[in-house]
Amino acid sequence: MTPEFDLIRRHFVRPMRAAALGPGDDCAVVAPSPGHELAITSDMLVAGTHFLPDTDPRRLGWKALAVNLSDVAAMGAVPRWVTLALSLPQIDHDWLAAFAAGFFDCADTFGVDLIGGDTTRGPLNLCVTAFGEVAAGRAIRRSGARVGDGIWVSGQPGRAALGLADLLGKVRLHGSAHDDCVAALEQPQPRVALGAALQGLATAMIDVSDGLLADLGHIAHASGLGAVVDDAALPWAPLHAACTDGKAVRDALLAGGDDYELLFCAPPEADDALAALSMRLALPLTRIGAMQSGDGVRLVDAAGAELPVGRRGYDHFA
Amino acid sequence: MTPEFDLIRRHFVRPMRAAALGPGDDCAVVAPSPGHELAITSDMLVAGTHFLPDTDPRRLGWKALAVNLSDVAAMGAVPRWVTLALSLPQIDHDWLAAFAAGFFDCADTFGVDLIGGDTTRGPLNLCVTAFGEVAAGRAIRRSGARVGDGIWVSGQPGRAALGLADLLGKVRLHGSAHDDCVAALEQPQPRVALGAALQGLATAMIDVSDGLLADLGHIAHASGLGAVVDDAALPWAPLHAACTDGKAVRDALLAGGDDYELLFCAPPEADDALAALSMRLALPLTRIGAMQSGDGVRLVDAAGAELPVGRRGYDHFA
Repeated sequence: MTPEFDLIRRHFVRPMRAAALGPGDDCAVVAPSPGHELAITSDMLVAGTHFLPDTDPRRLGWKALAVNLSDVAAMGAVPRWVTLALSLPQIDHDWLAAFAAGFFDCADTFGVDLIGGDTTRGPLNLCVTAFGEVAAGRAIRRSGARVGDGIWVSGQPGRAALGLADLLGKVRLHGSAHDDCVAALEQPQPRVALGAALQGLATAMIDVSDGLLADLGHIAHASGLGAVVDDAALPWAPLHAACTDGKAVRDALLAGGDDYELLFCAPPEADDALAALSMRLALPLTRIGAMQSGDGVRLVDAAGAELPVGRRGYDHFA
Repeated sequence: MTPEFDLIRRHFVRPMRAAALGPGDDCAVVAPSPGHELAITSDMLVAGTHFLPDTDPRRLGWKALAVNLSDVAAMGAVPRWVTLALSLPQIDHDWLAAFAAGFFDCADTFGVDLIGGDTTRGPLNLCVTAFGEVAAGRAIRRSGARVGDGIWVSGQPGRAALGLADLLGKVRLHGSAHDDCVAALEQPQPRVALGAALQGLATAMIDVSDGLLADLGHIAHASGLGAVVDDAALPWAPLHAACTDGKAVRDALLAGGDDYELLFCAPPEADDALAALSMRLALPLTRIGAMQSGDGVRLVDAAGAELPVGRRGYDHFA
């Protein structure tokens, strides 16, 4: 048993829920349910770019999977399988055990099997590819929004950005607000149940990974429409309670990524069903604006006057 | 248009052959043919570990895809789709254009669609996940070899290892042998047509990526058998003609990876069909030994006496 195969067997081979063939061959083999398509997403997480080098490996393991499950949820699909490719500077079994514990904690929480992957030597880098099932033709794309649709966001976007600002020493959060925002950053909760439940309700959907206004811009562009966000409707209060730096709060909510909340459009007829869904999932759903003809994303005050916006989101190469 | 999205659109978005939804949403969406399963493989290629930093980007683009298509072929599956995650130290459009040209050259050669992926900033690292289709229950695993099966290898393994030894200044290859061995290293030909054609003939299969004897060891272990390789049956002549260093030649053929030839087992009844297949594909298929009860991999001379073996293959963490 070579070191490479030993580390895979030791840390990453677990019993499967449902795969024709899991790790240990040239490929994994899976069979989607009849009448279903596969939704597929790949994300690469690089030390120093996506996470601080001293991030708790257990939380990193959780997050590496969670951000991909969020992409699957954002299609209205149900996550089923995942592959993990890992580049490591050296073998550190304590680090790997903690990373695997967090990864499988997330996998077990959302019913996902690790079916294969790769390990190699190099700068710390994780590449996760996740697979979800969605009934044929029912994937919720970014391009389906219609004029008059409401714009909705789940949960409390902006917390992860405040958590990062705190870790970087740019703001100072206290007590439970600190823990809550750092947890949002390091252990985000992909909205898996919500994503699947929005089948038949949402016309377009994306997860907020790069920033609320930037990601809304992707829906607007793909749908060939404009988006108007009502500043007063945004969920400001919990962020202002957590942080006294008003500019940091505005940047966090409008342009902060990394919360992995779902941002979606739905026609007004869906309002009652969305209220009931919010209750059932114990998850806030906030209507923050509406889709219009035109293009771009505008932020307006209660009188409808356009407000200036600084940053709209994150670009790795900006 | 941000730089990140611009570079994806500029270099990596091409028309699809067959995917329900390609790049540009949270997930790609694909539908396998009725009655088929998906064979899935992920490989990570790291600068300095898997390729020399000054490797021609066009050849690197080809190879990043080719090594994954080889894994799909080694299941007897037909490659259909691929995702690409790319970490780049900076945006170099000339490098990206050449990389994409090589990647799509390979994709077009083998009929594969790039359906999604990710780009980010960090040390140069490529992660490719490839998807193939195989009739349900027909994937050719490593574990299916039976006592008495012949052991076969395609093409000319060992060339890539000699090419690498030449680039590293350890041996000196001349003229067409040099070009041929460096091409085997930098632009390997995944045996896609052969893999699918071995449905119904091969009982077990793997691609030679880590080394002939090491990879044969995986088949032996998974099948619960031993493997005996007949030294005299191995295709030595072309390598000796290319390189006067006898030890380098032995290491290259027995322990060299990176050729991505297929190594498979087949019962003696398949011999005629394999000869016909070799003719049809214009690809040598060489019977190099047989499976026996027991375990491990032994190399024997014409009299059946065991020969010593130095290296058997590559381990990233050895």
